[in-house]
Amino acid sequence: MLTHCVILVALCLGISTGLPTKETTCDLPQALRDEIQGYKPVVNKIIESIVNGEFKGDTFRSLNTFIDKFGARMAGGPVLEKSIDYLLNEFNTLGLHNAYTEDAIIPHWVRGKESATLLSPRSKDLPILGLGTTVGTPKGGFTAEIVVVESFDELKALPDDQVRGKIVVYAEKWLGSYGDTVAYRSGSVEAAKKGAIASLIRSITQFSIASPHTGSQYYQAGVRKIPTACITVEDAEMLLRMYKSGETVRIHLEMEDYNFENTLSRNTFVEIQGREKKNTSVVVVSGHLDSWDVGVGAMDDAGGCWISWKSVEYLTKLGLVPRRTIRAALWTAEEEGIWGAKHYMTTHKDNEKEEFNLFMESDSGTFDPIGLDFSGTPEAQCIFKEVLTLMEPLNATKFVTPGGGPDINQWVDRGFPGASLINANDRYFWFHHTQGDSMMIENPESLDKGTALFAATAYVIADLSVDLPKDVK
Amino acid sequence: MLTHCVILVALCLGISTGLPTKETTCDLPQALRDEIQGYKPVVNKIIESIVNGEFKGDTFRSLNTFIDKFGARMAGGPVLEKSIDYLLNEFNTLGLHNAYTEDAIIPHWVRGKESATLLSPRSKDLPILGLGTTVGTPKGGFTAEIVVVESFDELKALPDDQVRGKIVVYAEKWLGSYGDTVAYRSGSVEAAKKGAIASLIRSITQFSIASPHTGSQYYQAGVRKIPTACITVEDAEMLLRMYKSGETVRIHLEMEDYNFENTLSRNTFVEIQGREKKNTSVVVVSGHLDSWDVGVGAMDDAGGCWISWKSVEYLTKLGLVPRRTIRAALWTAEEEGIWGAKHYMTTHKDNEKEEFNLFMESDSGTFDPIGLDFSGTPEAQCIFKEVLTLMEPLNATKFVTPGGGPDINQWVDRGFPGASLINANDRYFWFHHTQGDSMMIENPESLDKGTALFAATAYVIADLSVDLPKDVK
Repeated sequence: MLTHCVILVALCLGISTGLPTKETTCDLPQALRDEIQGYKPVVNKIIESIVNGEFKGDTFRSLNTFIDKFGARMAGGPVLEKSIDYLLNEFNTLGLHNAYTEDAIIPHWVRGKESATLLSPRSKDLPILGLGTTVGTPKGGFTAEIVVVESFDELKALPDDQVRGKIVVYAEKWLGSYGDTVAYRSGSVEAAKKGAIASLIRSITQFSIASPHTGSQYYQAGVRKIPTACITVEDAEMLLRMYKSGETVRIHLEMEDYNFENTLSRNTFVEIQGREKKNTSVVVVSGHLDSWDVGVGAMDDAGGCWISWKSVEYLTKLGLVPRRTIRAALWTAEEEGIWGAKHYMTTHKDNEKEEFNLFMESDSGTFDPIGLDFSGTPEAQCIFKEVLTLMEPLNATKFVTPGGGPDINQWVDRGFPGASLINANDRYFWFHHTQGDSMMIENPESLDKGTALFAATAYVIADLSVDLPKDVK
Repeated sequence: MLTHCVILVALCLGISTGLPTKETTCDLPQALRDEIQGYKPVVNKIIESIVNGEFKGDTFRSLNTFIDKFGARMAGGPVLEKSIDYLLNEFNTLGLHNAYTEDAIIPHWVRGKESATLLSPRSKDLPILGLGTTVGTPKGGFTAEIVVVESFDELKALPDDQVRGKIVVYAEKWLGSYGDTVAYRSGSVEAAKKGAIASLIRSITQFSIASPHTGSQYYQAGVRKIPTACITVEDAEMLLRMYKSGETVRIHLEMEDYNFENTLSRNTFVEIQGREKKNTSVVVVSGHLDSWDVGVGAMDDAGGCWISWKSVEYLTKLGLVPRRTIRAALWTAEEEGIWGAKHYMTTHKDNEKEEFNLFMESDSGTFDPIGLDFSGTPEAQCIFKEVLTLMEPLNATKFVTPGGGPDINQWVDRGFPGASLINANDRYFWFHHTQGDSMMIENPESLDKGTALFAATAYVIADLSVDLPKDVK
């Protein structure tokens, strides 16, 4: 999951942003209420077939096979593209014939050998991970004194000559949420403005077992690009103590990271074509198929992809064809800056108002589902809330507004209805963008429930007699 | 904490061993009960001074200074010896003049560059840590197929020709406790008997963020020594799935590890000499000063050392001189096989029955204290239990028997009274022997309470009119 749109992300992760949650008093026409409640039998059938019936455990097994086969799927590299080819073949094998890809231009950054070593006041290897799109150091690296700050304000208050030629270490605390903390990942900009030659940041997490967490960072036009990496929470705290105690702290940093020319990748789609509306009022269910190059990207975000496209598979196999098309979208190159989804918006902008009814996303883990967050007009909120009452067999009826997620917020921010999975993801950031993003985080029962929630919600919304109202700018 | 004496260790960690806990019905003479309860005011004074008074936070601050200065203190290396010199100087500065060291012969194993790479069915870096005293691979390493087993039984059932020339991977589950699982760390022996050229084990932990856990392993006389390392829980599970699905799994393993000649180190002591008995009926409070070479050894076991020697400091500063000597012992080279404590037993064996009254140890974390486990005669148990009732202000009155710990079990097993800290260490094995053993695990309040418990208990036992009864074999 990317750093953009942090408030919505925080909301979709169930993390307090300090913003008030706006709730609408609903006064839906009784006929519409009755219509929605009339879906109870079919919703129960969908849920039962996935959670206890013929599809039980299949989402996990299929995901596990894929993950073991491909592992990490870094945008720009061959593994992601091979994994897309595999999925296209898999869809075909499963009888899902409405599958296709659309090209998207994406960046191509490659991590090389990276190391940081504390040289004084004592020697220690400092595990690091370069942040996405970072430049490397000169060959052989460099050795420099560090300046440790706990905030941007602290850095800005320092005279430039105390920073020039040094490595800035951000030892910012976890500020209560990912959204509040993640700005430090692009801290190289402020460091470079002060003349620093590199910046290191405390990994963005509440909990660590010496785990560095990579992630996107963004240089600023006109500001010198300096190498930037994350260090562990433990080492950041240690360096902070050493520095504050007056020690001269020196680090040798060596990073071989490469930014290549932009390249082509693909967004991947598989859909149930609607029985009445084929290319209008589409319900999109989505996740991103790319991952960072560490770990295997099971949690972030293959799980989200799987509960999306497995919804299409199971509804197809159950013979449930809604009025509108349900389109599973597996976005590419989300991690480097939502490249796939942004490209898709550009190429679909001509008739986007007619084309899209609802964007759904799962990109904050697929632990036990709790409900869905939602953004939309007051009337759309009321419809969505009513639909969510049907998810009681999953114990996943929680409705929160606003909602959204990194790949769909570009639409949500302009007034399209959008919804994201709320799940029991208290530990999400323990594993996020680390070597620990593995299949061990995934659980067959939770995945079944997540797929059931996505399948049932998408089906009802796609089959209703009315479109979700929207007020698109 | 070492692998030996696993049942007692498991008990001291509050982990079920399946063994019955023997409780004694107590019938102490009323005069002795009254005497013990008479210590209430002084115990309260000790606790108050450490938890809320003049010593509040000092254990943590002092530990933190030490840890940041020295980091990991691997037996056989110069850092451990320098850290001992530092402590001797520190004791002197603090006015603790009864400090000294005693030489001990210890092993000298050094980790070199280590790597494991999965080559097929796909490429992946596998984080490893060689296990203590492992031999290295030939220069340049080797590439071999793996055989993955979940148990010794499974390995033994395999025909030798299915194992010969391969790398055995143990993907044993966490079997409910450290004690039940840790035998797999010496799995190289059974692997070598079958003709394997190396063995890798799933790290011994319940929880992982891709963290390899090192630890001791023991070769067997007459069995070929093969390189052996731990891999992460995540990778062990993945390799198991790949292997069971019929894939040919190949790994390149390269380990530059060195076993040098045994060398000299020191056990470190600081004591309050008893006002009546100076070198007889000593109460020992202890931890081990050495650590593994990963992380900084704050949890394992500097914390245990600090609550031990800080007990001596605070009692001294409070002017509390008990009848018997309280001796803080900071053992050396525990991790490689309890070398320091074993050497000490050998050199003190001539009058050990007279010399020692009680051995206390802390080597399972210094989280919030809950009480003390204890081994001793029924009468000794009753005295100890009565003393523990005084620890009510710390909410640390839990009494469990039997008790003990890795460095003191050699005495406990022969009938000397022994006690170890019980603490809220549910997450102990998350960090154990990893890069994540850091100061972030330590907490000022918990350390204060741990020191208070050790200081008050040691003081009362050392000052009682009676020795703890013992039945030494």
